[in-house]
Amino acid sequence: MIIVLKPGLSDADVDDVCRRITAMGYRPHTIRGELRTVIGAIGDDRGKERLRALESLPSVESVTPILQPFKLASREVRSENTTIDVAGVTIGGPRVVVMAGPCSVESRSQVLEVAEKVRAAGAAVLRGGAFKPRTSPYSFQGLEEDGLKLLDEARRETGLPVVTEVMEPDKVDVVAAHSDILQIGARNVQNFSLLRRVAEAGKPVLLKRGMSTSIQEWLLSAEYVLSGGNPDVILCERGIRTFETATRFTLDLNAVPVLKKLTHLPVLVDPSHGTGHWEYVESMAMAAVASGADGLLIEVHPHPEEALSDGPQSLKPERFAALMARVRRVAQALDRDL
Amino acid sequence: MIIVLKPGLSDADVDDVCRRITAMGYRPHTIRGELRTVIGAIGDDRGKERLRALESLPSVESVTPILQPFKLASREVRSENTTIDVAGVTIGGPRVVVMAGPCSVESRSQVLEVAEKVRAAGAAVLRGGAFKPRTSPYSFQGLEEDGLKLLDEARRETGLPVVTEVMEPDKVDVVAAHSDILQIGARNVQNFSLLRRVAEAGKPVLLKRGMSTSIQEWLLSAEYVLSGGNPDVILCERGIRTFETATRFTLDLNAVPVLKKLTHLPVLVDPSHGTGHWEYVESMAMAAVASGADGLLIEVHPHPEEALSDGPQSLKPERFAALMARVRRVAQALDRDL
Amino acid sequence: MIIVLKPGLSDADVDDVCRRITAMGYRPHTIRGELRTVIGAIGDDRGKERLRALESLPSVESVTPILQPFKLASREVRSENTTIDVAGVTIGGPRVVVMAGPCSVESRSQVLEVAEKVRAAGAAVLRGGAFKPRTSPYSFQGLEEDGLKLLDEARRETGLPVVTEVMEPDKVDVVAAHSDILQIGARNVQNFSLLRRVAEAGKPVLLKRGMSTSIQEWLLSAEYVLSGGNPDVILCERGIRTFETATRFTLDLNAVPVLKKLTHLPVLVDPSHGTGHWEYVESMAMAAVASGADGLLIEVHPHPEEALSDGPQSLKPERFAALMARVRRVAQALDRDL
Amino acid sequence: MIIVLKPGLSDADVDDVCRRITAMGYRPHTIRGELRTVIGAIGDDRGKERLRALESLPSVESVTPILQPFKLASREVRSENTTIDVAGVTIGGPRVVVMAGPCSVESRSQVLEVAEKVRAAGAAVLRGGAFKPRTSPYSFQGLEEDGLKLLDEARRETGLPVVTEVMEPDKVDVVAAHSDILQIGARNVQNFSLLRRVAEAGKPVLLKRGMSTSIQEWLLSAEYVLSGGNPDVILCERGIRTFETATRFTLDLNAVPVLKKLTHLPVLVDPSHGTGHWEYVESMAMAAVASGADGLLIEVHPHPEEALSDGPQSLKPERFAALMARVRRVAQALDRDL
Repeated sequence: MIIVLKPGLSDADVDDVCRRITAMGYRPHTIRGELRTVIGAIGDDRGKERLRALESLPSVESVTPILQPFKLASREVRSENTTIDVAGVTIGGPRVVVMAGPCSVESRSQVLEVAEKVRAAGAAVLRGGAFKPRTSPYSFQGLEEDGLKLLDEARRETGLPVVTEVMEPDKVDVVAAHSDILQIGARNVQNFSLLRRVAEAGKPVLLKRGMSTSIQEWLLSAEYVLSGGNPDVILCERGIRTFETATRFTLDLNAVPVLKKLTHLPVLVDPSHGTGHWEYVESMAMAAVASGADGLLIEVHPHPEEALSDGPQSLKPERFAALMARVRRVAQALDRDL
Repeated sequence: MIIVLKPGLSDADVDDVCRRITAMGYRPHTIRGELRTVIGAIGDDRGKERLRALESLPSVESVTPILQPFKLASREVRSENTTIDVAGVTIGGPRVVVMAGPCSVESRSQVLEVAEKVRAAGAAVLRGGAFKPRTSPYSFQGLEEDGLKLLDEARRETGLPVVTEVMEPDKVDVVAAHSDILQIGARNVQNFSLLRRVAEAGKPVLLKRGMSTSIQEWLLSAEYVLSGGNPDVILCERGIRTFETATRFTLDLNAVPVLKKLTHLPVLVDPSHGTGHWEYVESMAMAAVASGADGLLIEVHPHPEEALSDGPQSLKPERFAALMARVRRVAQALDRDL
Repeated sequence: MIIVLKPGLSDADVDDVCRRITAMGYRPHTIRGELRTVIGAIGDDRGKERLRALESLPSVESVTPILQPFKLASREVRSENTTIDVAGVTIGGPRVVVMAGPCSVESRSQVLEVAEKVRAAGAAVLRGGAFKPRTSPYSFQGLEEDGLKLLDEARRETGLPVVTEVMEPDKVDVVAAHSDILQIGARNVQNFSLLRRVAEAGKPVLLKRGMSTSIQEWLLSAEYVLSGGNPDVILCERGIRTFETATRFTLDLNAVPVLKKLTHLPVLVDPSHGTGHWEYVESMAMAAVASGADGLLIEVHPHPEEALSDGPQSLKPERFAALMARVRRVAQALDRDL
Repeated sequence: MIIVLKPGLSDADVDDVCRRITAMGYRPHTIRGELRTVIGAIGDDRGKERLRALESLPSVESVTPILQPFKLASREVRSENTTIDVAGVTIGGPRVVVMAGPCSVESRSQVLEVAEKVRAAGAAVLRGGAFKPRTSPYSFQGLEEDGLKLLDEARRETGLPVVTEVMEPDKVDVVAAHSDILQIGARNVQNFSLLRRVAEAGKPVLLKRGMSTSIQEWLLSAEYVLSGGNPDVILCERGIRTFETATRFTLDLNAVPVLKKLTHLPVLVDPSHGTGHWEYVESMAMAAVASGADGLLIEVHPHPEEALSDGPQSLKPERFAALMARVRRVAQALDRDL
């Protein structure tokens, strides 16, 4: 940490701050500049924010951390990329992994039809929501356990592993029993009780970015899962909230190269939620792969205009197939493939 | 809902959209303008977003709701202000209710000292965290059940009712047993499982705004609690995330008059989290009351520079007492009091 | 500046960075921590960002400034508040100065009627736009020089000094000839050519915050005027752009105490533009004064529903008079007055 | 426009609003719904915001426009893509046009060296700033006219056309005399006096997006140039301001497909300013092309660590050449080329 002192302090004031730094287990190192005295607090400050409390001293102007606060998620702890094997599909390797399917599981015929079609188009994982986090209590909330069973059936029919969302600690076991990857939605990215619980579930975790979660905070949420004993965390950018309303969210592809620098974890992108409009999904899917993403999460529905959730951002199966063909060409231009 | 059609459609296209609207249970009403045809879908569209799916039709340009999507939280359903009685303290009435105390319960002496001092300065409710949602898994996570017991003791000593946070459905009962108001933190404002669970707990709920939650979404989260059978919801603005970094968050006082127009629920403001710096708390506390807030949530710590969480934004007891004197004068200028 | 080095560097790498720091005129001071080496570059780094370029070295992780980059605007250079006298009205003193009038000058009768009524209600300065920055080229662009003449007439009739906007360097002289305070609008806060030009005009400058201008950047824009020889800069918060759409902008009252800490310049608040809705103007005007603002800028129109610009946020004269009565009580609660 | 009325109005209230709509030149069409009465105001409402003023009536809840407010920039007015020829380089056609060079022109040797190297690597246009908009008055402000002459020399040496920024109306002629494309910077996107002036300069205009300018507002700024008689406007996304601080701005690639839907104008992307860090420029350049951009604007400097401006985001010439090779492959995957 770097502690910047206010101007005009006496030596006794500076000594007092140094004493407090020492008492917290750090070694103070003072630099007297022309206009400010600065104290470096030497020690491992990752994940420790107690030094921040010094900001409440009248003698202190600001306290700034030097290190990123996450450890296990960091490239410094592990420099090579993490790869995660899910029923034969490797996530984080050269292949760009596309996870596709309906926003919500609505019926047996819907999920089976979509599963078959996305498999045929080259998707590697089936997505589909059984428990749905809905902004309004009056909206369709998902088929719940019945939906999980339909996903099971779709897995058997197509051979595709399944990713689906879990919303509360008590449902982790049942969702884990019916799925291959546990999805934590954007609204639960800082639901720390849930993060601790999925860390123990023995299944890979797909952790979506919250709509106002900084990349640093997001990696700290990943750190909850990693430090809980589960090394298999997949990050998924899905759009952040900004002033722009032409898209539902602002898909932040900058996060891809930033994450690739900071962390060894695989990075996916969800252009369906990120843009909120089916017309923009293909362009942003291609851009995501070009930015270095390890995979995509895409919503596909046989009849988007009748979908019970997220119809405006869902692709029809034939549009998804066309997207796959174009995304494949971009992947190949980067010496990857679908 | 207002459905705007793309230009250049045939009558058959327009009829197709009208048929779909009818099939969803609404009555279509077509207006042919100079450049666009617009269809009004007549019916109660609150909380129903299925019409949104029409946006995925090639013939539709946009779908715009006319009504606010919440019902029970709305002034249209209930025009007079809701007041909530908590152990003799009325929230939402003429008195501005100040809830104060430490961010985290850290020790018996800390919480008892703070409780006594905030009571003496005029606080009506004691706040204090036993379960703490922390961005980093390596930060202090709260004293948990032991913390709840210390809050109990502080209530007995001071007579102040207690507000404290609950973070997961399984802990709702134990937290409710030891507190008078259940706080839902900003990171859980869209934790719908938790919202459904606190709706059944028989205690008032203080619902903080998420850092990127729109006012409309926030009221829909309140609607989860209200429609779950609990009419006692207190809203608390605590700062939103913006580009500005001079403050930790941007306390959005505009939300106060907007909420007063839209809803009958009481509105509190938390200037401690909203600004993140103790030096700005007093000014924003006064501004919050002047904007029409029904109360304040303020962090007080005997030794902020040693706090285990949120030291930089905590006030010392004597500063809190000075704040109360100034806030009281503002309240009186509005014909209210503390 | 604090230069944080990447891990695993050799002594030669560290020496190389130190040599570059010395070559730029600063004195390097190295701290070797457990996980990182940090170099303090000692010297006055205000306004000098050349050290930032070191971030492009492969050996450097980040470069962080220690000092605020503005000088003349800073409390460190001038600790007492700046007060500005405009035709007998003191801005920045104990009196809260209210500037009110129409968004645009539309006609002689309109501006004279409003001027007379806001004067009667206690406004100290008349506002009114003759040159209007409009988002669309098809919107009313102001009466231009004719509008300036009408403002002259209103000044003569009421005795109120006039603030009006200037949009381009070539118009500074003519606007200065007809007004008492030159307003720089939000969209021109970083129009540096215009800032340099108004610095020479011999009139006080009211500098609005841009809708995405950080407080630090805003003060650097003020520094353009101050360093150009004009000490009379008035800052005016008018709302920033955030994700929230319930208000037109998010009026950021947090900026008031932040500015009061950082700068000696007077701070005004414009709740009309900040909220964009007349219904919220009174609440936010009271909150602004309670937060410590030195004055208000408020739009008043005799017939808002017929206004050529900003009708939705304009108050009728009688509502403005009611606002003044309530704002006065808040000012008095802070030992100020209108 | 759609005018939503408040509930509980009398027929006379509704008639009053209709009368006002008629008086403004529109034809009212009333729909009486279950909970609200809605009036469609039929007529061409593009660019006309006077109807918005009705929002100040007590009987009106909200006024919502139906049409996008720009005309000449719209695909509805011109469906085929605009292409702009600059000294033999076609912008907006199949070729992806890369404009590269230093942030600031600093010296003869610097600009000539960079110009030669970016030409050799495949850049089609030379960029370089002679007049620099700098946040701080104490930063390097550019070589001004001397810089323009050096750009002239670089054009003669390399044959590359030149794009450079103009900051004020009085300099438009001199900048136009020395350059092939006039750049309007992000901070001047709503400097309407400057937009009107460059519309008359007879040179193509590269219009950067402001850091908090919505896509709709940006197209209205383009409309100032188009309606001023200059059809040759090139849009350039360069990052918007959000809460995320891991990148300097958030490059919003979503804007590319949104613009491609709304407008016929060419769309460029500036990943250098958008990310602010050289390490992220290549990834985002590839993503920009994959998203459908017609070109790139990239900063290149022979010695970024000594640059007088924007060093951290500048690429060395050899890195730029590597970037070009990878971007070319992405372009070819989309059946385009560099």
